[in-house]
Amino acid sequence: MVQAKSLRRNEAGIETVVGILKQQFGDRLQTGQAIREQHGHTTTWIENQPPDAVVFPHSTQEVSEIVKACATHKAPVIAFGTGTSLEGHVNAPAGGISVDLSQMNKVLAVHSGDLDCVVQPGVTREELNTHLRDQGLFFPIDPGANASLGGMAATRASGTNAVRYGTMKDNILSLEAVMPDGQIIRTGQRARKSSAGYDLTRLMVGAEGTLGIITELTLRLQGIPEAITSARCVFPSVDAACQAVMMTIQYGVPVARIELLDEVSVKAANAYSGLALPETPLLLLEFHGSTGGAVEQAETFGQIAEEFGGTDFAATSTTEERNKLWQARHDMYWASLQLRPGARGISTDVCVPISRLAECVTATRNKAKELELLAPIVGHVGDGNFHTLLLIDMENADEVAKADGFVGWLNDLAIEMEGTCTGEHGIGQGKRSYLAKELGAALTFMEAVKKALDPDNIMNPGKIFPARDG
Amino acid sequence: MVQAKSLRRNEAGIETVVGILKQQFGDRLQTGQAIREQHGHTTTWIENQPPDAVVFPHSTQEVSEIVKACATHKAPVIAFGTGTSLEGHVNAPAGGISVDLSQMNKVLAVHSGDLDCVVQPGVTREELNTHLRDQGLFFPIDPGANASLGGMAATRASGTNAVRYGTMKDNILSLEAVMPDGQIIRTGQRARKSSAGYDLTRLMVGAEGTLGIITELTLRLQGIPEAITSARCVFPSVDAACQAVMMTIQYGVPVARIELLDEVSVKAANAYSGLALPETPLLLLEFHGSTGGAVEQAETFGQIAEEFGGTDFAATSTTEERNKLWQARHDMYWASLQLRPGARGISTDVCVPISRLAECVTATRNKAKELELLAPIVGHVGDGNFHTLLLIDMENADEVAKADGFVGWLNDLAIEMEGTCTGEHGIGQGKRSYLAKELGAALTFMEAVKKALDPDNIMNPGKIFPARDG
Repeated sequence: MVQAKSLRRNEAGIETVVGILKQQFGDRLQTGQAIREQHGHTTTWIENQPPDAVVFPHSTQEVSEIVKACATHKAPVIAFGTGTSLEGHVNAPAGGISVDLSQMNKVLAVHSGDLDCVVQPGVTREELNTHLRDQGLFFPIDPGANASLGGMAATRASGTNAVRYGTMKDNILSLEAVMPDGQIIRTGQRARKSSAGYDLTRLMVGAEGTLGIITELTLRLQGIPEAITSARCVFPSVDAACQAVMMTIQYGVPVARIELLDEVSVKAANAYSGLALPETPLLLLEFHGSTGGAVEQAETFGQIAEEFGGTDFAATSTTEERNKLWQARHDMYWASLQLRPGARGISTDVCVPISRLAECVTATRNKAKELELLAPIVGHVGDGNFHTLLLIDMENADEVAKADGFVGWLNDLAIEMEGTCTGEHGIGQGKRSYLAKELGAALTFMEAVKKALDPDNIMNPGKIFPARDG
Repeated sequence: MVQAKSLRRNEAGIETVVGILKQQFGDRLQTGQAIREQHGHTTTWIENQPPDAVVFPHSTQEVSEIVKACATHKAPVIAFGTGTSLEGHVNAPAGGISVDLSQMNKVLAVHSGDLDCVVQPGVTREELNTHLRDQGLFFPIDPGANASLGGMAATRASGTNAVRYGTMKDNILSLEAVMPDGQIIRTGQRARKSSAGYDLTRLMVGAEGTLGIITELTLRLQGIPEAITSARCVFPSVDAACQAVMMTIQYGVPVARIELLDEVSVKAANAYSGLALPETPLLLLEFHGSTGGAVEQAETFGQIAEEFGGTDFAATSTTEERNKLWQARHDMYWASLQLRPGARGISTDVCVPISRLAECVTATRNKAKELELLAPIVGHVGDGNFHTLLLIDMENADEVAKADGFVGWLNDLAIEMEGTCTGEHGIGQGKRSYLAKELGAALTFMEAVKKALDPDNIMNPGKIFPARDG
């Protein structure tokens, strides 16, 4: 494990709060070791730092009561969705209370006429889409995991559809949240747009639970398109594939999904998901539109791909075949882990301007080769965002050091290219040291906002900010 | 004029700063009455409260020096773009320095491969689009006025294209800003998406200059569509027109523009812009896409319109005819003023969920009739946003009181319908009393952010917040 620094614990305060909440929540407050460890767990190489207790609220009011108790006694509060974040977001370096929102999982309203819905934070993206399907609607944001919508908002998640539909920041109309003093606020109404004061919705989205706990989300929905066409196309190199992506975006094709898998990833997907894809760099695509429109988009892409040596272009409108392909894409994390059983997976998450994509991906491949790291690449390349999943033997200190060096090298490269160290995973514990380099003096003002809203630093301490709390 | 409360002035501080800046800026600092009044002027009924001096910086560094001087001596700083805001945003109720950014008007870079550009805040939307045209690109946000991009960001502006392309919040990748202590920050890089810390970009967008001065904007651009089709369609009533809009949005037609003009507005447009439109409620539309796609969208709309009694449906792809129609739409404010020469125009700006649109517009018309107010209606109805322009004789106290009552009634109605009192104009001075009603406890946290970033309240004081500064 990579060690995460522990922070000073307020033992007395935490003990008092656990006692108070035990009174109120009974069996809905758990302190067993296994459940605590599970709530510190994230899919990462950062060591587990379990909270002191896990509480399962059923309502916003209950979340408010929990936070008020924690505020009074200065005990840390960590919101927990499904535990699928990748940078140690739910770890408890100063101990405290994990607020597991999985039992707040109701779809409260679907306003099909307004193309929006209101959900509790524990609803997962798949649950929501199952709920919506009959009404011809869907919610487009799809990180790899079946994450909770509250957690997706907190990390400003995106996924394969972002190139067309944007990220969580673009698809939330307003939020209800419990703030660090326990007050319940609503950041906006249901209007499509508003100029009424500061954008607290976007301030809470991506704040990783450090400014409050999201207890309700009003989400924008999309109509399921009349036609969906999926396609795949193989390329002689990742460079060629990225060149085709760049041209597609620059040409303005309103592609809904355009995903890169390098040959290592394709191999992993074939083995894990029982596919028989040609084991060379591959683009997976999806086009949404009217029947004519989707086909037209696919044809345009086909012509562009050809220019860059793309071959074996195959389009399909069959739901079953399409679902199988996308399920395989969503399972890539697990598929890649199988390439080296026993290894840990460490995912990078850089995002660069699209014009630098080919250069960045190629440099990344070369660097991994140079360091002899097994590092399959997948990417939401239409956004300029890609992931390498480093497969590391955590017992091998040299290898861990090499991986750490690689991650730093790649983040620095992306920042130099006017990109970001994190396109969609967030900062958490793992990327805190890169934030100052990326944002410079802006960080001072983020810290000022944090201090103003959470003066005692009880909301998810030890995340995002590099220096303030160790 | 409607009186705006003056705030306590820091005479000594302001005098000192004016002296310091006069030294540094020479002729680029002006204190003449006419220029000061011009910089307090907004297209509104709120009385003019001129600043003490107007300064014209040429660089971010100069803006920083101005703000540092003001911070040291606690003198107010008011950013000024083109003075076309509608709620007294550039008034100086506590005096101070107006920072006129019109000479910071360079397009610094166009990255056509990344579909973005970097501009100074004084560039206007028309200037930018003229600059971009040769490269096949455009920036879609188009408030009625030829506003500056810095001002548009500060008020979270939108316009006729927002139904398809979003508002300023959706089309800014990152900002450079001078903060209240004079520090220069950059809120992000040029990546399409990022999860790196708090969304300071969206915090500055819509903050109306109360948290800092925007000195550079990195904007998302769009490719000029292959085909643009405009259309108009007349309806027997505004209710019928709104019903057609609701159905179009719910059906998922990716309409680029869908604008309502009631019969009074049509009359005004005909007279002012030399058109011969039928004088009944009218929808103006635009469809962007491939040649086939744009026509397909127009046909779908035509069918929907028919269901609601729409007639006289006419589509055109001629650039000249299209431009004439949209110019007339953008000139509506001036056209409406001509309906009653000598009157002031007071624009409302409510935005409601689309399912409540027909009900809200109809109630608004009835209320205006009941109060015998001349109040043409236009609207970006695809977003649920519409404006009534009350034409008021400001010498007639009864009429002013009726208008004031009408504005309050409408804002309350929109808020009750889960909408907002301002879809795109902002709060400024004029709407401060409605913000608490709309956002409740959330306002407390906006104030906490303001206080943390601008403890001496020097950045555009007397705007947005109802109570804090009188």
